[in-house]
Amino acid sequence: MCRYVSYLGDELTLSELVYRPANSLIHQAAEAMESRTRINADGFGVGWYNHKVHPEPAVFKDVTPAWNNANLRSLSETVTSSCILAHVRKAQRFDPVNRSNCHPFQHGRLLWMHNGDIPGRGRLHRRVCERVPDELVARIAGNTDSELAFILFLSLLEPPLDRSIEAAELADAFARTLEQLEAWWSSDGSTEPLVMNFCVSNGKSIVASRFALEEQAVPSLHYCVGSEFSCTDGVCRMRCASGRPRSVIVSSEALSADPQWVSVGNRSLVVVAESLSVEVQRLSRAA
Amino acid sequence: MCRYVSYLGDELTLSELVYRPANSLIHQAAEAMESRTRINADGFGVGWYNHKVHPEPAVFKDVTPAWNNANLRSLSETVTSSCILAHVRKAQRFDPVNRSNCHPFQHGRLLWMHNGDIPGRGRLHRRVCERVPDELVARIAGNTDSELAFILFLSLLEPPLDRSIEAAELADAFARTLEQLEAWWSSDGSTEPLVMNFCVSNGKSIVASRFALEEQAVPSLHYCVGSEFSCTDGVCRMRCASGRPRSVIVSSEALSADPQWVSVGNRSLVVVAESLSVEVQRLSRAA
Amino acid sequence: MCRYVSYLGDELTLSELVYRPANSLIHQAAEAMESRTRINADGFGVGWYNHKVHPEPAVFKDVTPAWNNANLRSLSETVTSSCILAHVRKAQRFDPVNRSNCHPFQHGRLLWMHNGDIPGRGRLHRRVCERVPDELVARIAGNTDSELAFILFLSLLEPPLDRSIEAAELADAFARTLEQLEAWWSSDGSTEPLVMNFCVSNGKSIVASRFALEEQAVPSLHYCVGSEFSCTDGVCRMRCASGRPRSVIVSSEALSADPQWVSVGNRSLVVVAESLSVEVQRLSRAA
Amino acid sequence: MCRYVSYLGDELTLSELVYRPANSLIHQAAEAMESRTRINADGFGVGWYNHKVHPEPAVFKDVTPAWNNANLRSLSETVTSSCILAHVRKAQRFDPVNRSNCHPFQHGRLLWMHNGDIPGRGRLHRRVCERVPDELVARIAGNTDSELAFILFLSLLEPPLDRSIEAAELADAFARTLEQLEAWWSSDGSTEPLVMNFCVSNGKSIVASRFALEEQAVPSLHYCVGSEFSCTDGVCRMRCASGRPRSVIVSSEALSADPQWVSVGNRSLVVVAESLSVEVQRLSRAA
Repeated sequence: MCRYVSYLGDELTLSELVYRPANSLIHQAAEAMESRTRINADGFGVGWYNHKVHPEPAVFKDVTPAWNNANLRSLSETVTSSCILAHVRKAQRFDPVNRSNCHPFQHGRLLWMHNGDIPGRGRLHRRVCERVPDELVARIAGNTDSELAFILFLSLLEPPLDRSIEAAELADAFARTLEQLEAWWSSDGSTEPLVMNFCVSNGKSIVASRFALEEQAVPSLHYCVGSEFSCTDGVCRMRCASGRPRSVIVSSEALSADPQWVSVGNRSLVVVAESLSVEVQRLSRAA
Repeated sequence: MCRYVSYLGDELTLSELVYRPANSLIHQAAEAMESRTRINADGFGVGWYNHKVHPEPAVFKDVTPAWNNANLRSLSETVTSSCILAHVRKAQRFDPVNRSNCHPFQHGRLLWMHNGDIPGRGRLHRRVCERVPDELVARIAGNTDSELAFILFLSLLEPPLDRSIEAAELADAFARTLEQLEAWWSSDGSTEPLVMNFCVSNGKSIVASRFALEEQAVPSLHYCVGSEFSCTDGVCRMRCASGRPRSVIVSSEALSADPQWVSVGNRSLVVVAESLSVEVQRLSRAA
Repeated sequence: MCRYVSYLGDELTLSELVYRPANSLIHQAAEAMESRTRINADGFGVGWYNHKVHPEPAVFKDVTPAWNNANLRSLSETVTSSCILAHVRKAQRFDPVNRSNCHPFQHGRLLWMHNGDIPGRGRLHRRVCERVPDELVARIAGNTDSELAFILFLSLLEPPLDRSIEAAELADAFARTLEQLEAWWSSDGSTEPLVMNFCVSNGKSIVASRFALEEQAVPSLHYCVGSEFSCTDGVCRMRCASGRPRSVIVSSEALSADPQWVSVGNRSLVVVAESLSVEVQRLSRAA
Repeated sequence: MCRYVSYLGDELTLSELVYRPANSLIHQAAEAMESRTRINADGFGVGWYNHKVHPEPAVFKDVTPAWNNANLRSLSETVTSSCILAHVRKAQRFDPVNRSNCHPFQHGRLLWMHNGDIPGRGRLHRRVCERVPDELVARIAGNTDSELAFILFLSLLEPPLDRSIEAAELADAFARTLEQLEAWWSSDGSTEPLVMNFCVSNGKSIVASRFALEEQAVPSLHYCVGSEFSCTDGVCRMRCASGRPRSVIVSSEALSADPQWVSVGNRSLVVVAESLSVEVQRLSRAA
């Protein structure tokens, strides 16, 4: 079912987010604790922003398990960023494991990840192609439900896509993406669970969802707000915020034992604005 | 623009077809002689049949240049087959290099390769999705024009696809695939060249095309018929056939200096039947 | 700690050995049952012989987990052999995951695999280089203890190495390899466990060891003899032998629920001769 | 024979060094102009320093041609550094193409690259193992002459290796490495050319050699000093220095048409100090 983590705040090495926490994403690749799929080792990816140099993020994705990738380990000690998204993948049965199917997916300044499952791949693919303009169809590079959802999301943003987009606008297109996918699922009368824990970022805001239509299949989602997330003597902690928050993590699983971790309810959107304020929006049930 | 080779006849090691000839496919990966793209090193693939064991072919594809792949070199000395297809890829600018984009593409008993270019990727992708059933849309794994053409071809065969299909039936669907793609290209008024040197096999027959709509851009295609293709002291030769042919090669480039190599004309189909008889059909211009 | 399987007997598809059994090697990659390391997903390899074509085996190895490798899955349905070795790797902490470190290792007609650990990598490397001729030093391609043990083993065979070698000769050099490695370990006064479950084959015989110097760390080893190993309706069985055996499996774990599986004792050598007779030799303790 | 580039100076994106120049390293991967091997596509690597975060460099290496690696392209636009080393590899015949054989090689703060060939791999490997301490033997991860030369170089530095090392000390150990390798080559009476264009950096200085013992086989080496290397409208230029130099490139080939490029003579060491002063030292012939 995959696992992901996203971060917004003061600059951090990738390592502090991805390797060092007790329940880091690397740990979740082999031993996910809150996931139905304990092993999430069918590729991985990390995207990060360096706004001083380029509005678009760097994306490093590969097909090996995250835990044994020497490039990832090396990069993570040296690269710092104020906005990081990372993902470990559990491929669905016989789905190709290649870079194009790894998350996060990128378009211009935007990164997208998914933890879940949208039933009916062929039908979804066709519907997305019918719905979106040629230039977005041309961007479909792999064959995951996750990427198709991203392409749909992109089509629900006002063009041009290669511009600065506020958190509120991202959240609005995000909610409409969920609505559209739920409507298609309903009209199909599918009996397979629809699971849509997505996460999107423009490098300055993050929007993530916890959303599943079958209660027992809702994958976990947590967030954590504080003044600083850092690691000392092998223990990573989110320090309590005095004044305004300076670090926010939205993650499939709690990375550390800090009491600040909040579990997000089903059918919810977590919106982290550029100010680092966090708002949880309850999604209404489709009419 | 890619290069390919296909073989039907007495059992041969992969090596005799792919490595040992003076102008082998491995050689063409670095030094193609009749291609606009001298280097064809953005992945490779080989498919072969072992009819005694399985009606479906084995497919081995990877993202490295063919010349340095240790697995390919090792397999090629030991694996024998009476029907082999192999391909070295030249990716179009910035197209992903992953296994799903490598040729040959497989569906059930069928293998498909392409050397060429179909302009207008997004539009082609949409049209194919509109045209073919959901279960074929679900089979689109990468983002090449080549795979989309294969999916269209599959939709022009009578289902079920997982059955024995004769050369004549393959050739018919193949010709209609070319027609459809040319019709779409014409209706778009595209000015980019349409180049469609395809090759398909069911393990017992081969159909290949030389087809381009701009004379100066027609990639080469050759075939060679004889009694045996084999290599002695580093020199590979197609021996002359006495009686009925027992070995046929259809290939982007002549592999050896044998006088039997025939250059196929533009807008032609080469049909190699199970009897190893070779027929070259001239394709009529779309009305 | 890795897991391996080896087979000698009537021709079998790779799939029947590697994929289909209830506790197949693919299953052991994610869920090893008798291993301290449940996940063995740091690369894999398979080697097999086709004596009619080439005395040397084909070797296919790659760095992904075995369970998601599309090439392995495709090959396995089509390739048959009378002698197959396969391995899933658990790398030691931070050891590189690359093809050169995957098992089986090959030299000429010989294949070698290891499940275990030899402490003191640098010292072992130096000792092997001091001990073996230049042409074998030049064959060291990776940095595993397993490959160094293979190089030592090769130096204990009578040259030339590229010839047919009987089971008895393999077993003799194998035993001396274990003795030498144990003697080095003893002279170092190492407190780390020495674990040497090796397996070697020339395509016609197999020799494997269960050998560890600390009882609680002895990895499992089993073998199974019968008339035919085959899979029907998803259940794989070793049929009982009437007359002489026609199929032998030597494997880290029992692949099926057949009562024929025998657990090998510690400090033992399993020698499968070309006649498929199986002899278990108790190794004496070094003086 | 490989090609490399190294940079020291004001912060630059990797892209400005590796992709954008007319004769960039990416260009040299497919079309090297001053090399006997036009294609250098058997893997690549890039290392860079971020002194504010970590004294050790990040290293990203992979086995595909540099020109089609999507991770490299993405990283290069976003990552900046004041010290960058990059390399495209041409493997010697049948040498494994894996990450451990890609350059640059790293140990602690040091990066090492090679363009050339040291004959007699097995003998070199043995000699290095005899000469260096166990902990350095344990660091040999691949099987290139280049890495063995690096291990020898490391053994000629005063331990501990994980400290700040001045340019002069690097240059001294570097010269002794060349001497030792030349002495071994001479004592063997080898008739194969000894080619040792190495490059080492600690993140603050660079030392590189042009060194071959057969005049016709000396690979090219150039350097360029100026105030700023940057790209405008697709044209990359080294601006002339007013005052002290602020950017130095040492590279197998001139990257741009700037008149500042200087060709280094054979048997020379280029030493770029932390002040960015460049000194070319003539190496004396071994007695």
